[in-house]
Amino acid sequence: MTDARHGLTISEVRLTPVLVADPPLLNTQGVHQPYTPRLIIEVITEGGVTGLGETYGDSKYLELAQPLATALIGRSVTDLNELPALAAEVCGDPPAATGADAVDVGGLRGVQTAGKLRLSVLSGFEVACLDAWGQAAGLPVHALLGGKVRDRVEYSAYLFYRWAGHPGGRGERDDWGAALDPAGVVAQARRFADTYGFTSFKLKGGVFPPDEEIAAVRALAAEFPGRPLRLDPNGAWSVKTSCRVADELGDVLEYLEDPTSGTAGMAEVAAAVRGAGRHPSGRAGLPLATNMCVTTFDEIAGAFARDAVQVVLADHHYWGGLRATRELAAVCRTFGVGLSMHSNTHLGISLAAMTQVAATVPHLGHACDSHYPWQTEDVLTERLTFRDGRVDVSDTPGLGVTLDRDRLAVLHRRWLADDGGLRDRDDAAAMRLADPGWVTPALPRW
Amino acid sequence: MTDARHGLTISEVRLTPVLVADPPLLNTQGVHQPYTPRLIIEVITEGGVTGLGETYGDSKYLELAQPLATALIGRSVTDLNELPALAAEVCGDPPAATGADAVDVGGLRGVQTAGKLRLSVLSGFEVACLDAWGQAAGLPVHALLGGKVRDRVEYSAYLFYRWAGHPGGRGERDDWGAALDPAGVVAQARRFADTYGFTSFKLKGGVFPPDEEIAAVRALAAEFPGRPLRLDPNGAWSVKTSCRVADELGDVLEYLEDPTSGTAGMAEVAAAVRGAGRHPSGRAGLPLATNMCVTTFDEIAGAFARDAVQVVLADHHYWGGLRATRELAAVCRTFGVGLSMHSNTHLGISLAAMTQVAATVPHLGHACDSHYPWQTEDVLTERLTFRDGRVDVSDTPGLGVTLDRDRLAVLHRRWLADDGGLRDRDDAAAMRLADPGWVTPALPRW
Repeated sequence: MTDARHGLTISEVRLTPVLVADPPLLNTQGVHQPYTPRLIIEVITEGGVTGLGETYGDSKYLELAQPLATALIGRSVTDLNELPALAAEVCGDPPAATGADAVDVGGLRGVQTAGKLRLSVLSGFEVACLDAWGQAAGLPVHALLGGKVRDRVEYSAYLFYRWAGHPGGRGERDDWGAALDPAGVVAQARRFADTYGFTSFKLKGGVFPPDEEIAAVRALAAEFPGRPLRLDPNGAWSVKTSCRVADELGDVLEYLEDPTSGTAGMAEVAAAVRGAGRHPSGRAGLPLATNMCVTTFDEIAGAFARDAVQVVLADHHYWGGLRATRELAAVCRTFGVGLSMHSNTHLGISLAAMTQVAATVPHLGHACDSHYPWQTEDVLTERLTFRDGRVDVSDTPGLGVTLDRDRLAVLHRRWLADDGGLRDRDDAAAMRLADPGWVTPALPRW
Repeated sequence: MTDARHGLTISEVRLTPVLVADPPLLNTQGVHQPYTPRLIIEVITEGGVTGLGETYGDSKYLELAQPLATALIGRSVTDLNELPALAAEVCGDPPAATGADAVDVGGLRGVQTAGKLRLSVLSGFEVACLDAWGQAAGLPVHALLGGKVRDRVEYSAYLFYRWAGHPGGRGERDDWGAALDPAGVVAQARRFADTYGFTSFKLKGGVFPPDEEIAAVRALAAEFPGRPLRLDPNGAWSVKTSCRVADELGDVLEYLEDPTSGTAGMAEVAAAVRGAGRHPSGRAGLPLATNMCVTTFDEIAGAFARDAVQVVLADHHYWGGLRATRELAAVCRTFGVGLSMHSNTHLGISLAAMTQVAATVPHLGHACDSHYPWQTEDVLTERLTFRDGRVDVSDTPGLGVTLDRDRLAVLHRRWLADDGGLRDRDDAAAMRLADPGWVTPALPRW
């Protein structure tokens, strides 16, 4: 019995930053760079098992990851409740969520702090520990989370306005072409539906003036009648604009995601639109969803008290891991707030982790977001696949994914070789290559 | 790997109701009967491991336990997220928390429903599954919950007004003598402190007029200056009386537990006393705690919105198991509400379970309640012990307890032989043996 526990002791942690190809996807801040940084985490146990995790790979995350990796040596992969305190100890105390030490990490997650960064780093280690534990125990990660309640997890098609290629021909090419108007968005959605079977669609908005995006959503509704649709301008709109869009699209949207910035603004929009009663589900008004004004437990009480959001988009990279995601689910369930799932650019390790935890949450009532179909590169021997818009929940021990060390080495060499400023995601800098006068827009933009 | 999972499949579930000796402890409903029913649950896996659980043993719990036991055969001890739906399926749908089908289960837990009964039954199975899983994996239960964050769990001395013996000389004898006034309560507390090292004290009130109980708490404060004290009248007081007691004892109480019945009344009391600012910790006013108006997730939102309670007393028998207790902890942490732990009469299996889960909750800020010192009988080969008021967190695989089959058989035979109406706890019926005119008091009693 003692041997079992000794085998779960962490003997080594490997951190491998990589740069992965990313298409020229547009958002209100700018455009995705041709390559985006991710950090691949390997937690190796004395029993000889290697667990995999993945998180953001920007420099500021790497700086926190190194001391945490060192501190994990000699601990058990099962000692997960101690991770937050350990991270606080080795990475420094978290600043207040809205304190002066708030740092900018790209602007798409609301106010950012060192504490939030640390949770994002920690999440990658937690997933790697669970993967290692599951492999050692002969159990899938979902079993370590109490077991799956569904065999497949539904994802939505994540639609983006995009260019055909990156400015100056940088980066990898793909054959998706440009999508810059309703017809382009519908064509993209149709290809997503035909290729992957998605029946739920999310458009990343905040790129063009609201009327253009309203037209795009209307075009989607005409092409896919009755299907769940979402629009997410990343807080680019004023309260007034948000209310207008909600009014225009209330009959076709499943939810409206972060129309405006901050809990106070979201509460104003929610109060205005929640009485409309036009949502097809029959529930009161159009629900607002967020992955910006509520991304930590500290931000929940204020938002829920004001009924500012009706759906929280979970993201284990934000909330501190798969177990924290389940805690978020419990909080949302307790307060009658819906749950969906957010995604940033990620690889297959994270998709496997997202699928494992999503499989365990009974009241996950919406298809999850994933950028994965946009990622042509991965670090796995076998990529995960979408069928009927769903990913099968793996019952293989651990996450059920295998690292392709050759691919990892290639993508790591790209990271090592970078001298083009790609080690830190900066959508505004990428946009300046096309539009030299571009500055990150002040919000509200419209 | 597949073998590991097969070994965790449940091949048999044994349910053994027992009657265990209980002293004549007084509460606002009456007095404990000389024996109280408990249900011992054994979950046996195909791998040959036996997991132990314990819950209420009254007839209405046994009726729900049998179909759930049958339904578990062939499932894995790791499939815990499915337990609530499974229980709903085999035991019937839960009624609304305050519906007409609410049933009385003793009155000490606020409004009771079939849904709450089912959670209490389910909790015993969940603990047994975790014990079996832990034993099979070579891991303590706390590791399956993410690992302990402390090595010992603190408990409070649970003081009761009591008689020297049960009416008519029924039941087992003990040498504690009567405690019916301040001196008796202090003597009981002193013995608890000397024997077990407790430094935190809770008095079960609602038995005598409030002034007598105020005097008892004052006497405790004089005997144990600066020690955390609690008073719990089980909702026996009016709002006005509650406010008066809070005012009288605000300087010595750690918290006041369920002074009045129902969330609305608790909110009124809280609003009145929370401005006083006299709590020794420096926090605003005297905190109110509850294990009556908030005992399910459905009851949280309304209570938190009104700031009706500042501390929730967790109890895995109420909330649906150890994992649900951790979810409750996450909800409380998120809303800045304190967490402590409630106890009803229980045996060592439940104390082990309480200790394992308490060890995993970082912000558990109060000593837990336990009736265990009052229980002279148990079903374990070795009883758990309190030292310095604390129970060591076992690192032995599973719960770390072993069933004594001979003792179990003795206590089960007592249950089989009962023809004195002891199979269902009824504190009022027990009281009528001493006071034939006794009826369960209407609340508020004072």
